[in-house]
Amino acid sequence: MNNTSAIPRPAEGPWQNVTVVGAGVIGASWTALFLARGLTVTVCDPLPDVEKQVRDQLNESIPALRAHGLPTDDLAADLRFEADLERAVADAGAVQENGPERLDVKRDLFSRIEQAAPDHALLLSSTSGIRATDIAPALRQPGRLVIGHPFNPPHLVPLVEVVGGEQTDPEFVRRAVDFYTALGKKPRVLHKEVPGFVANRLQAALFREAVNLVLQGVVTEQELDEIVTSSIGLRWAVAGPFRSFHLGGGAGGLPAFLKHLGPALESLWRDLGAPVLDEATVTFLSEQANAGFGATTIEEMQAARDVAQSKVMRVLDDASS
Amino acid sequence: MNNTSAIPRPAEGPWQNVTVVGAGVIGASWTALFLARGLTVTVCDPLPDVEKQVRDQLNESIPALRAHGLPTDDLAADLRFEADLERAVADAGAVQENGPERLDVKRDLFSRIEQAAPDHALLLSSTSGIRATDIAPALRQPGRLVIGHPFNPPHLVPLVEVVGGEQTDPEFVRRAVDFYTALGKKPRVLHKEVPGFVANRLQAALFREAVNLVLQGVVTEQELDEIVTSSIGLRWAVAGPFRSFHLGGGAGGLPAFLKHLGPALESLWRDLGAPVLDEATVTFLSEQANAGFGATTIEEMQAARDVAQSKVMRVLDDASS
Repeated sequence: MNNTSAIPRPAEGPWQNVTVVGAGVIGASWTALFLARGLTVTVCDPLPDVEKQVRDQLNESIPALRAHGLPTDDLAADLRFEADLERAVADAGAVQENGPERLDVKRDLFSRIEQAAPDHALLLSSTSGIRATDIAPALRQPGRLVIGHPFNPPHLVPLVEVVGGEQTDPEFVRRAVDFYTALGKKPRVLHKEVPGFVANRLQAALFREAVNLVLQGVVTEQELDEIVTSSIGLRWAVAGPFRSFHLGGGAGGLPAFLKHLGPALESLWRDLGAPVLDEATVTFLSEQANAGFGATTIEEMQAARDVAQSKVMRVLDDASS
Repeated sequence: MNNTSAIPRPAEGPWQNVTVVGAGVIGASWTALFLARGLTVTVCDPLPDVEKQVRDQLNESIPALRAHGLPTDDLAADLRFEADLERAVADAGAVQENGPERLDVKRDLFSRIEQAAPDHALLLSSTSGIRATDIAPALRQPGRLVIGHPFNPPHLVPLVEVVGGEQTDPEFVRRAVDFYTALGKKPRVLHKEVPGFVANRLQAALFREAVNLVLQGVVTEQELDEIVTSSIGLRWAVAGPFRSFHLGGGAGGLPAFLKHLGPALESLWRDLGAPVLDEATVTFLSEQANAGFGATTIEEMQAARDVAQSKVMRVLDDASS
């Protein structure tokens, strides 16, 4: 590892000033969370109507923030906009980057950010697909760069996958964990950089079989959704797959489960489908979605989901405290 | 379809007497649910200590039933035991079979059940792997046989996958749905018989990648569980995978999602692992499970999970009503 002693420790209140670089859906959702948690937020995005877009999304996020027990009065009091990147990060304690998912863009952004931001600033990227190791060659201080990949929407869902690159300083990984923890998030450190990180890979694995079953006509998309929300979804909100199978093994736990049900599981693995998203498949899935979901607007569905989501999170927080 | 007109309609209160054939963990859990819902239950199992086992499990299920708002006073008042199969089903309105997962056993059980049970009785199997179509050749009235596959534990998790065989009468599929609905369950009819049905296939698909990520050292089993319970588990308790991606597509819904993120998804699909459960793998997974979960007893973990599960279900029921 490189020289941690040379890295300045954060000042008192090191994260009070946060800069959000790139204010699309993810960046605006981070902005809502940071503001609701009492931070001062500078939004940096070259889009001319960024201010309106962010303020609109802030307003949309208020019911979910409230359902989650967060204060929302005068939410935008500590919000400012600064289109110039260098000025935007000049007094940042943390920078959460949410730019386009292109390596050249990330390299350019972070090489400018690291020079303009204070030396103690946490440099965080929301990228879902680019490794810190691949951004690092563009940086003078790659030890400060940490991936902090949220599960969408970050103002609501607790997970942040925290991943350092080969040159990331472990001290900055720890600081990233402290930062997200202080925000009420559940940061989880991954020990290796893998494409898609963990949650999206698991999601992709399940979705592949979901597509397969719908294409085969076993169930419709809506029926499949109902099956998930009345079984494995409920289960995995409370206990993850390993714990669930540990409890499925009776007194012998996961070892007994694998011994007795492993062969049946492997037999299912061999039977899983491997569909491709060619044009005919995308058309089929899209038409079924429009027929099944089309009667309700996205906004209404999203608001209903976010409120239900917040209620589930609160009851689980209460259950574990 | 075969002659529905010849099939007797159920009498008044057609499901008041239910027979549970095979009283392992699943059968005893069904028994708890049936009793809590006010039915009279006859348990048929040749095991000498079946009565003690069932009564013990009934007591263990009381906190979860209560947390779910079901009455549990004098739960066993309408419970009886009858080891003789023909006598056990003689006045049954419904028979829920939970015997060993062997085709010859299922065929033998149902050929005896159909002869001894009333003509209107629903014949239901909890099998997770055997098709009604394959049991049917042993039966005189295969039209009555319906798979009613619960997600474990049935006294708690709402899903029942309802699947008829090629010779199953659609009228009996409808009756099975009515029966489970009357019990407060969420029956979902599958349109085709596929190995593992839907929920277990989806679960197997996700678990395969979970095993892959743990074997690769990206995360431990416990870290993976924490990632699931703080992201996709919470999400899928509220909205299934298609609805979630429909909302992930912005104003364009699932069609826009598939168009923009389909290629990234397919790229992840190609990168998913395909581990096998050989001895070394099972040992590795088992040792990590013992190290991670071993400090708490299975009973304690299960009780905590069931209570949390019930709370989540109640808050979602409230949210949707």
